[in-house]
Amino acid sequence: MVVNPHAMPAESCIDLLSQYRHIRSLSERYCAPLEHEDYGLQACAETSPAKWHLAHTSWFFETFLLKPFVANYQPYNDRFEYLFNSYYNGIGAQFPRAQRGLLSRPTVSEIYAYRRAVDDAMYLLLASDVVQKTDVLSRITLGLQHEMQHQELFFTDLKYNFSVNPLLPTYQPLTDPWLEPEPPAFEWRAFENGISLIGTANKKSDANTLFDSFCFDNETPQHRVFLEPFSLANRPLTNAEVLAFIHDGGYQNSALWLADGWQKIQTEHWQHPLYWVQRDNAWFEFTLHGLQPLDPHRTACHLSAYEADALARWMDARLPTEFEWECAAQRYNATHGISETDALTQSLANGHFVDHEHYHPRAANPDTLFGGIWEWTSSAYSPYPGFKTPAGAIGEYNGKFMCNQLVLRGGSCVSDRRQLRASYRNFFYPPDRWQFSGVRLAKDRR
Amino acid sequence: MVVNPHAMPAESCIDLLSQYRHIRSLSERYCAPLEHEDYGLQACAETSPAKWHLAHTSWFFETFLLKPFVANYQPYNDRFEYLFNSYYNGIGAQFPRAQRGLLSRPTVSEIYAYRRAVDDAMYLLLASDVVQKTDVLSRITLGLQHEMQHQELFFTDLKYNFSVNPLLPTYQPLTDPWLEPEPPAFEWRAFENGISLIGTANKKSDANTLFDSFCFDNETPQHRVFLEPFSLANRPLTNAEVLAFIHDGGYQNSALWLADGWQKIQTEHWQHPLYWVQRDNAWFEFTLHGLQPLDPHRTACHLSAYEADALARWMDARLPTEFEWECAAQRYNATHGISETDALTQSLANGHFVDHEHYHPRAANPDTLFGGIWEWTSSAYSPYPGFKTPAGAIGEYNGKFMCNQLVLRGGSCVSDRRQLRASYRNFFYPPDRWQFSGVRLAKDRR
Amino acid sequence: MVVNPHAMPAESCIDLLSQYRHIRSLSERYCAPLEHEDYGLQACAETSPAKWHLAHTSWFFETFLLKPFVANYQPYNDRFEYLFNSYYNGIGAQFPRAQRGLLSRPTVSEIYAYRRAVDDAMYLLLASDVVQKTDVLSRITLGLQHEMQHQELFFTDLKYNFSVNPLLPTYQPLTDPWLEPEPPAFEWRAFENGISLIGTANKKSDANTLFDSFCFDNETPQHRVFLEPFSLANRPLTNAEVLAFIHDGGYQNSALWLADGWQKIQTEHWQHPLYWVQRDNAWFEFTLHGLQPLDPHRTACHLSAYEADALARWMDARLPTEFEWECAAQRYNATHGISETDALTQSLANGHFVDHEHYHPRAANPDTLFGGIWEWTSSAYSPYPGFKTPAGAIGEYNGKFMCNQLVLRGGSCVSDRRQLRASYRNFFYPPDRWQFSGVRLAKDRR
Amino acid sequence: MVVNPHAMPAESCIDLLSQYRHIRSLSERYCAPLEHEDYGLQACAETSPAKWHLAHTSWFFETFLLKPFVANYQPYNDRFEYLFNSYYNGIGAQFPRAQRGLLSRPTVSEIYAYRRAVDDAMYLLLASDVVQKTDVLSRITLGLQHEMQHQELFFTDLKYNFSVNPLLPTYQPLTDPWLEPEPPAFEWRAFENGISLIGTANKKSDANTLFDSFCFDNETPQHRVFLEPFSLANRPLTNAEVLAFIHDGGYQNSALWLADGWQKIQTEHWQHPLYWVQRDNAWFEFTLHGLQPLDPHRTACHLSAYEADALARWMDARLPTEFEWECAAQRYNATHGISETDALTQSLANGHFVDHEHYHPRAANPDTLFGGIWEWTSSAYSPYPGFKTPAGAIGEYNGKFMCNQLVLRGGSCVSDRRQLRASYRNFFYPPDRWQFSGVRLAKDRR
Repeated sequence: MVVNPHAMPAESCIDLLSQYRHIRSLSERYCAPLEHEDYGLQACAETSPAKWHLAHTSWFFETFLLKPFVANYQPYNDRFEYLFNSYYNGIGAQFPRAQRGLLSRPTVSEIYAYRRAVDDAMYLLLASDVVQKTDVLSRITLGLQHEMQHQELFFTDLKYNFSVNPLLPTYQPLTDPWLEPEPPAFEWRAFENGISLIGTANKKSDANTLFDSFCFDNETPQHRVFLEPFSLANRPLTNAEVLAFIHDGGYQNSALWLADGWQKIQTEHWQHPLYWVQRDNAWFEFTLHGLQPLDPHRTACHLSAYEADALARWMDARLPTEFEWECAAQRYNATHGISETDALTQSLANGHFVDHEHYHPRAANPDTLFGGIWEWTSSAYSPYPGFKTPAGAIGEYNGKFMCNQLVLRGGSCVSDRRQLRASYRNFFYPPDRWQFSGVRLAKDRR
Repeated sequence: MVVNPHAMPAESCIDLLSQYRHIRSLSERYCAPLEHEDYGLQACAETSPAKWHLAHTSWFFETFLLKPFVANYQPYNDRFEYLFNSYYNGIGAQFPRAQRGLLSRPTVSEIYAYRRAVDDAMYLLLASDVVQKTDVLSRITLGLQHEMQHQELFFTDLKYNFSVNPLLPTYQPLTDPWLEPEPPAFEWRAFENGISLIGTANKKSDANTLFDSFCFDNETPQHRVFLEPFSLANRPLTNAEVLAFIHDGGYQNSALWLADGWQKIQTEHWQHPLYWVQRDNAWFEFTLHGLQPLDPHRTACHLSAYEADALARWMDARLPTEFEWECAAQRYNATHGISETDALTQSLANGHFVDHEHYHPRAANPDTLFGGIWEWTSSAYSPYPGFKTPAGAIGEYNGKFMCNQLVLRGGSCVSDRRQLRASYRNFFYPPDRWQFSGVRLAKDRR
Repeated sequence: MVVNPHAMPAESCIDLLSQYRHIRSLSERYCAPLEHEDYGLQACAETSPAKWHLAHTSWFFETFLLKPFVANYQPYNDRFEYLFNSYYNGIGAQFPRAQRGLLSRPTVSEIYAYRRAVDDAMYLLLASDVVQKTDVLSRITLGLQHEMQHQELFFTDLKYNFSVNPLLPTYQPLTDPWLEPEPPAFEWRAFENGISLIGTANKKSDANTLFDSFCFDNETPQHRVFLEPFSLANRPLTNAEVLAFIHDGGYQNSALWLADGWQKIQTEHWQHPLYWVQRDNAWFEFTLHGLQPLDPHRTACHLSAYEADALARWMDARLPTEFEWECAAQRYNATHGISETDALTQSLANGHFVDHEHYHPRAANPDTLFGGIWEWTSSAYSPYPGFKTPAGAIGEYNGKFMCNQLVLRGGSCVSDRRQLRASYRNFFYPPDRWQFSGVRLAKDRR
Repeated sequence: MVVNPHAMPAESCIDLLSQYRHIRSLSERYCAPLEHEDYGLQACAETSPAKWHLAHTSWFFETFLLKPFVANYQPYNDRFEYLFNSYYNGIGAQFPRAQRGLLSRPTVSEIYAYRRAVDDAMYLLLASDVVQKTDVLSRITLGLQHEMQHQELFFTDLKYNFSVNPLLPTYQPLTDPWLEPEPPAFEWRAFENGISLIGTANKKSDANTLFDSFCFDNETPQHRVFLEPFSLANRPLTNAEVLAFIHDGGYQNSALWLADGWQKIQTEHWQHPLYWVQRDNAWFEFTLHGLQPLDPHRTACHLSAYEADALARWMDARLPTEFEWECAAQRYNATHGISETDALTQSLANGHFVDHEHYHPRAANPDTLFGGIWEWTSSAYSPYPGFKTPAGAIGEYNGKFMCNQLVLRGGSCVSDRRQLRASYRNFFYPPDRWQFSGVRLAKDRR
């Protein structure tokens, strides 16, 4: 987490307060369609219960703001420090991740009461002088970014947790037609070689831009990367293309797979993307809008990096590196008439994010690299040259995960658009596929 | 399940109806103290959610009575046949046992509605002529016995499911003092050698005694067993005795343990009975009445058969066989003045069962072999000579489990006293310890 | 182990010496066909390497005779106490069982040298006065019985260890024709109800009969068991009968299986007995004489107790109890002209044991219950009434395994006939099938 | 594998023949100290038996040269194609890797006979015209490089396989003193920022340089990488430094560890590097020269990447990227008087490789980056821009492993120096530590 708070005029606090109110309320609004019984579901270690997300995001504010910065603050409940700590060893031991679904208590009502109490204390903090102190504002900003990340996980986790129930519960009924028009024809977009600037600079920010200028520590320092010439697809792969892969025996052809991927699909008997269901020779897809016929025009999602890589190999292409992706994002759609900055702003605006309230990727829009699905890159999630983690437990936020994972870029249909930018790095393990993850092809140009 | 229905006068149905109403309502009454969130808890494969018990017991009536015996019966929900089938392969495939906790839907309300619908249909059945048909009455009786078994499991499962939550929820606050008076001194009761009649005869029963004369198929046929002379303890082991075993290094002394038991306690790092907790050098026990100081006078429970066997060996004794136990139960407390039948009736009446609403064994009562805890025997759960399972899926009730398990006798503080008798055989795997299981010593007399 | 040594004249020692020489040499003779590389093979935790058997049987004599009874005895190698201890916690820690195949050192030559050294010391012991001491002779006898048991395991373990090699090595080429004549027609033999004497008495034995009067502690005390009337088959099931079971869908029909058995065959994908191989629609069986066509007339073997039980159920029969088996063995073939004792002697003489050097069951001989295959019983391996283990580590020989296993009776084609008798109890876990284990049907007669 | 064969004069074949004879004979010479029993050892899935290495390297020549290029070639043994295929799905199915130690047959003698037969056929091939054909010479070269890689694995695998034996066998006794002089003081060497050329070009090679100009496909294409300024240590970390880390509680301090590393050391209870042994408060290290006192001056080895990373963090440094390492290697020790090429040649010559016949890293030599230990980098093993695998099964050699692994650089004391160069990329999974792997620190310079 990197934010430069500096002298902060009072107005900005008002602004931050409104951000705080808004983002905190979103977590609860997203839960509105849930039955009481759904809040505790955890179908695998990776997918936390909705209730836990609600509690943990509050724990974050309590732990990193109320406890250190509010004089004589009384913890809401002594056991919560343990129960709702995700992975911060610097804070203390954690209740085992895989057992979060076993916490019937505190109840949903008690969690909401916890949220109220934290919010009330935060309002006092936001109204106090302390908010001017170094770190406080940046931590509040981080807490809100953190909450938006968990809002996204709320959706992906809930989908997985619902999917193991043969009744296939619907999160929200569909309001518009399911079948999409055909996406634009596949095209390569060429990018030249040279040195690119990757990541975000620690720029001086005044209080009004605190939220907008935010970036995570893993996006820093800004640095130079030399790229050979490459091309990037104008859209991600569609369900029709994945179906063609299946019909071509792609899941049975070892030559297409990384060794670890081949072993995984053998062991797990993967024969199609996650959530695909075949009934009476027809394909369906389980979605947050219920079971739907597989739409060939929509962007394929819930692919592991292994599947993404095999699909790319089958198409005689490859995954992009995260640097190629970021370089392309910086200049995508920029032309003589449109500056890179404007193009990027427009590109982000074109993205399909959670505010569309359509919780599944649509047919791809070639005018943006953002939204719809997270795009696997071939880049291992590693520290940038000169990367330093902040001191203390908060330094565990990102840095300690820089091993064994791959970077994904772009954001998905359940991401909050306020989080996304060209330099945003998401990361998951290659076999993971419960996120809205898909594949955009790249290739060398020499 | 063995019941002889025969010509059944109408009055008996009235009686059975009242039994039905009463027992069905108990399942729901036991759930009253639960929070909504508790209904779905499943902390391990063996401990089903309360909600699942409510649904499965209704499924039993729907599957084995409504579907076969009600003309044009419409299943309440097609998917329930799969969701709430426990293990009846003859009915069809089953939703995986270990994932029952992942069914947030149907909701608690929907399950209660299901119960209402099944009850309504059952009332019609009970009021119809069909109830006179062979098998119908006996199946209703079986369904009620089955529901009482699941009521007991409700308590043992809930206790385990609560125990993994660091908040250690209380099912029901204690109303009377926790600490018990010292139990009577340990004594051996001697029994002579000879042929004993074991099990229950398939006696002709008229309709009025249908419920009372019930026994499970695994208690039949009645047959002869020759017993060498033996002695049985006048009470089960106490917490004080288990503490002495611990202080004597019992859990570290391989010479006391069966080979499989030794391996188990090494692998699982067992150093004390389940639910015992040591804090600041004092011992506590997690109970359905919350965390309590370990009471030395109470009967020890939640012991595996391995621990029971090691405790017995440490005391230079052994576990009884199930035949010794049954033989002793038949004549326990019988004297010149009191017939065996009367003594047995009194013995059962002395037992501490679920109706006491004290959900933990007390200090032992030497005037009964029944209640408080299930007593491990050394007898493998095997078919009696001439045993036959009923035809069809209902034959899977007991017979297919007659391997790898041991018999327990006597019933516990969460059993329904209407189920217990000298011949009742409960059965669990040797390492199991989430039941209220303890140990009564036996020894040879030659 | 129960032997009464008593005053022992010198001649008996001469006899025991010759027994010692003979049995010890057999272990090495059985290894003669092995390649050097075969000695270390261990394909699963249960099947020890040949080399380990050679070492462990010597360790037994060193540990239980040389160390305690030879003055100033110097252990052959300090580390061997740890390396070759099988499971005697009373002696000390053990090298992990599953890793015995990883001990390339000591080499085969070094193990043979160890055997030489132990034998030389044993010869001195046998020639000394100490041999007269209580326990010494009985321990030597036990050591030889122990070695014969490991000789049998040598064969069953080697077979399994070879079987995972796609080259399917042959232990010894076949010298006589493979296909057997049809066995006699299936018949039931009826036995009456009543009290049987089970087990072996601790009879006074003089030195000349020390070896002959030997029995294991688990066969004692002799005691009475009441048996209801039953029938026993005149021969075990054949391969033809198992094939019919397979063709009838036996492995797919859950109604035939114990619950634990059904789970096992699902998990392990068992579709036929161990070592059966189907090639081009023909069935073959891997044997110690190489891969052979499946002979329909031979007795079926390498069945788990689950398969044995399912086969019996499919044939509307059941497994015998160990008491029924022993009772039948005591009087099998006895008629007016032939006493029980003579009939039993003849029955044992008719058995197919390791001395035939045909290491696979043949077509059954209806004139004996012994040999060919071990016959699963439905009896859990439990202590007999009054059973006591000897004090000290040697008491771990049998007693601590009396849980979770079933008794098998009769001895197999790789057993030494000197070990077998009506009361001999072998024991394995229900899913085990690497022994020569099969099934003889029983049924109730009431 | 990338080699340009081109027109090949006859002399070169003579040269290649002599290379072939030499390298093939080395495999057998390295086995000379083995006992017969050691050849089959496999203590974990990753560490193949010596016998298997001998067979597989021959299989490689038979599969990729004899079968495709020798007319009417008769396979030596039909089953060997399956038994000794490591991972080439394009060739066919493979005997399970984890069970290689279970192949007592073919015997050691049979494997040597197989080698002889393959060699004889190869000599004929090398003497024939076919050797001039495209691909043949390059495949022979690849086969020899492959054999050298397996010679290195022979040592690392044997060490692990021996280490589980409590007797701790010695591969070869030590001939020189064990304790090393103190290595030079730790120093940083600075390198400037800029574009580096990484990897090896596909240069035209004439036949005489075929062997020398060899590189693996994963080192190509040569491409540009921009590096920020960095410093590299003049030597790897020593045992003394790892000891200091241990004494400082490094293995107990979560703040030093990557999340996956912390989980690994908790799960596996790692408290020190592999092969370290503590006895009576003194540290020892198991080596191929037997158990030795831990030498504080020697370079630390058998570290996982997790430990390497934690050590670096503890020292406020980091691991180098593979590009930094390669860039440094290109110019290490180059000065005004010494060209980069000469310096690199000298650097390689200074390296401690297998020909020293001292099978453990010594105290570091600051005049080289090569030899002693493989140095972990922070770089994921990924394809270089423009990387293409060769067509066919041989394309599986390297490419399919480019996921989940990290690159190591420099070569170890059991590598063949003919394989090493600045661009050579070795790769293992982060938790792996049975290779001679250690850590050289890097740091940023801005």
